Amino acid sequence: MKLYNRKKNWLHQLKPVQMLFIFYFALVIISTMLLSLPISQQEGVDLPFIDVLFTAVSAVSVTGLSTISIADSLSTAGIIILAVIMQFGAVGVMAIGTMIWLILGKKIGLKERRLIMTDQNQSSIEGIVRLTKQVVFIFLFFELIGFLLLGTYFLQYFPNAKEAYLQGFFGTVSAISNGGFDITGNSLIFFQKDYFVQSANMLLIIVGAIGFPVLIEVKEYIVSKKKRKFRFSLLTKVTSTTYFLLIAIGALGIYLFDFRNYFAGLTWHENLFYALFQSVTTRSGGLATLDVSQLTEENHLFMSILMFIGASPSSAGGGIRTTTFALVVIFMITYIRGGKGIHVFRREVHEEDLVKAVTVTFMAILIFVASVFVLSIVEDFSLSQIIFEVTSAFGTVGLSLGITAELHTISKIILMMLMFIGRIGILTFLFMFAAKKPKERIRYPKERISIG
Amino acid sequence: MKLYNRKKNWLHQLKPVQMLFIFYFALVIISTMLLSLPISQQEGVDLPFIDVLFTAVSAVSVTGLSTISIADSLSTAGIIILAVIMQFGAVGVMAIGTMIWLILGKKIGLKERRLIMTDQNQSSIEGIVRLTKQVVFIFLFFELIGFLLLGTYFLQYFPNAKEAYLQGFFGTVSAISNGGFDITGNSLIFFQKDYFVQSANMLLIIVGAIGFPVLIEVKEYIVSKKKRKFRFSLLTKVTSTTYFLLIAIGALGIYLFDFRNYFAGLTWHENLFYALFQSVTTRSGGLATLDVSQLTEENHLFMSILMFIGASPSSAGGGIRTTTFALVVIFMITYIRGGKGIHVFRREVHEEDLVKAVTVTFMAILIFVASVFVLSIVEDFSLSQIIFEVTSAFGTVGLSLGITAELHTISKIILMMLMFIGRIGILTFLFMFAAKKPKERIRYPKERISIG
Ligand SMILES: [K+]
Ligand SMILES: [K+]
Repeated sequence: MKLYNRKKNWLHQLKPVQMLFIFYFALVIISTMLLSLPISQQEGVDLPFIDVLFTAVSAVSVTGLSTISIADSLSTAGIIILAVIMQFGAVGVMAIGTMIWLILGKKIGLKERRLIMTDQNQSSIEGIVRLTKQVVFIFLFFELIGFLLLGTYFLQYFPNAKEAYLQGFFGTVSAISNGGFDITGNSLIFFQKDYFVQSANMLLIIVGAIGFPVLIEVKEYIVSKKKRKFRFSLLTKVTSTTYFLLIAIGALGIYLFDFRNYFAGLTWHENLFYALFQSVTTRSGGLATLDVSQLTEENHLFMSILMFIGASPSSAGGGIRTTTFALVVIFMITYIRGGKGIHVFRREVHEEDLVKAVTVTFMAILIFVASVFVLSIVEDFSLSQIIFEVTSAFGTVGLSLGITAELHTISKIILMMLMFIGRIGILTFLFMFAAKKPKERIRYPKERISIG
Repeated sequence: MKLYNRKKNWLHQLKPVQMLFIFYFALVIISTMLLSLPISQQEGVDLPFIDVLFTAVSAVSVTGLSTISIADSLSTAGIIILAVIMQFGAVGVMAIGTMIWLILGKKIGLKERRLIMTDQNQSSIEGIVRLTKQVVFIFLFFELIGFLLLGTYFLQYFPNAKEAYLQGFFGTVSAISNGGFDITGNSLIFFQKDYFVQSANMLLIIVGAIGFPVLIEVKEYIVSKKKRKFRFSLLTKVTSTTYFLLIAIGALGIYLFDFRNYFAGLTWHENLFYALFQSVTTRSGGLATLDVSQLTEENHLFMSILMFIGASPSSAGGGIRTTTFALVVIFMITYIRGGKGIHVFRREVHEEDLVKAVTVTFMAILIFVASVFVLSIVEDFSLSQIIFEVTSAFGTVGLSLGITAELHTISKIILMMLMFIGRIGILTFLFMFAAKKPKERIRYPKERISIG
């Protein structure tokens, strides 16, 4: 009884960000151990520790970058373990993410801060549990459909039902969790003419990366009886609009940067699906229907920008997040046009959110530049290859120009840190180091200064 | 009489930013015409229009990037014309800059805005004229000393007094204006063992790039009788501290990124002066005592960051400016530590200045990324070479890895635009497109949103 109380107190004292960190850390350790088991690896394979660790971090952070070939290294048991890790990485963190979203998200809102701080053990915990259940339910619902459809569809491609449904199971989990791993040995390139498989994968990737508040609201809209009166939240509107705009702009850009090169001589529908799929996958998916290393260097840079922006907040994806990007863009346009206050969808954005968005973007740029620096010192690869790899890790995307396996250990460690930060989000990461209580500051007089 | 009035009214209606633009534009056209004259070019030389235009823009924006060799193309008359253009580019713009600084700088300060707007033809114009005279006086004072010292000192290097004093004259103007052109044909590499010439050049570059408000305050401090009570402005403190910190960090970084390469086997004082000079020059100078293309790729990226930050506001230099960089850094540190309000030197920074700093930085990153994109599509050079050239133009630095002359016309046009924007400053550039009066906006309710 006493032990139970002590344990509860210890857990109780943790900040949500610390809980998230511990959850992640534990998941990485357990995953590394499980994937190190001989039963997880194919006969005759003995993966080095750094590569197992890298795979574990990549799976937990649902990135999909890999220093090994999953198809050539892991056994069927290992593949199932990997799928479960991705599932935990995506949904588990989303569950905790729900809680943090509710606690931190409201906590910062001036007056609500104290209210919820004292009150959080009651109705709010109830709400969190309900929300988390909904998220898990929606995820499992799509996974079941994906598994059944893809598994059955794959019967035409694979020699037996076991193999077809294993591919269907792993492929579904890899897509919806935005894990981006493949057991085909070559991502989805095998299905480059199969628009059904591609469409299913795009849909699953979007469900995983568009953000669970969006999923819940859409579900509520569908079950709602008064559809005309239903009001979507600002978050849902901003993140969905940005998400789909980025997909459209991304597809157009990817096509334009390669229309004289890779896309030359292909049919319009091949080009449409190539461009569309690769655009969707840069949001965070990481699966690919073509060998991205064959695209032009400009396309690699363009895709790096897309990956840097990443997915929606509170989703299975990474990056600076769509809302951050949208706020920064709207802020700049408003400022240049001489306006005051940031308005989106007839709502004024809270100043604190803008400050957050700016901080996240600057910190992300700082982390990006520092990582590119270290890798360009350590590695002999070209700058654009390094930029692509770094943004892919930070955006927890998992696309690669094929250099991951050849990197030095120090670069692998940096990529692991990037995947980790990209997944838990820069703000969560920063708040772990933040002072518990801001110091009382002396108020100083204001003075103007020249800028630019 | 009527004509005079009409002319006065026409000028009167112009916004300060538009006046600056017209001044620049006229200076570019006149410079291009003057440098196109046969008398300006050496016998047998007939420079293409685009190269003369590029040289003119480079001189007016005191950048120093060049698609031609000045030493091999321009006659003595042409060299003197080039020096005069740099002089106008640096001091002329600083004079107008003074005015804009006073008008815009105060204009934005809430209540003063209307006051000065209606009142600006009287006491403030008086103040501007006085300030401008001071700036020009300080500049000419340093130039005279530089010319006499360097010219006389050069007698040991050059065959006759005319050549020595021409070199002394051009070198002084090129350094203090931060123009960065050379007529030695090889920047200051000839003086790589001469620490006197290097020290004199560093001093002149710093005078030109540290910002004229700093120069004026230092002068006032020197002539002040009550030195203990003298109070430097926040701008002076922030920009000077940042400026010298960047020089120190820059020198250290430049050394570290090449200590196994270019700097290996040299004496400590050679390395000190190499690192120090190249660090000073990235603030905006553009002269060099070594062939920067022989440094490592990491050093090129590091120097690109230094050039992107650039010089002080209201100076002969470019980039996002030291104050912008300082505010963004302090803002991030304050936010992460959970503090409110940005404090520097016991003063609170005005919120509007912070917003400006953030806007400038984001816009600069946007312009930088877009330019790198276009150049990497058009050119076959490596990404780091392109990044170096682009930041050098935007920072109006003028260092080059030697690719300027080989660029396509479209790249040259982009570099010209970058030099132009870098010199007049992003904010001035943006305000040219800003709406004259911000539209009255409907006030919308605030709503929170998830970030990162
Ligand atoms: K991924
Ligand atoms: K320069």
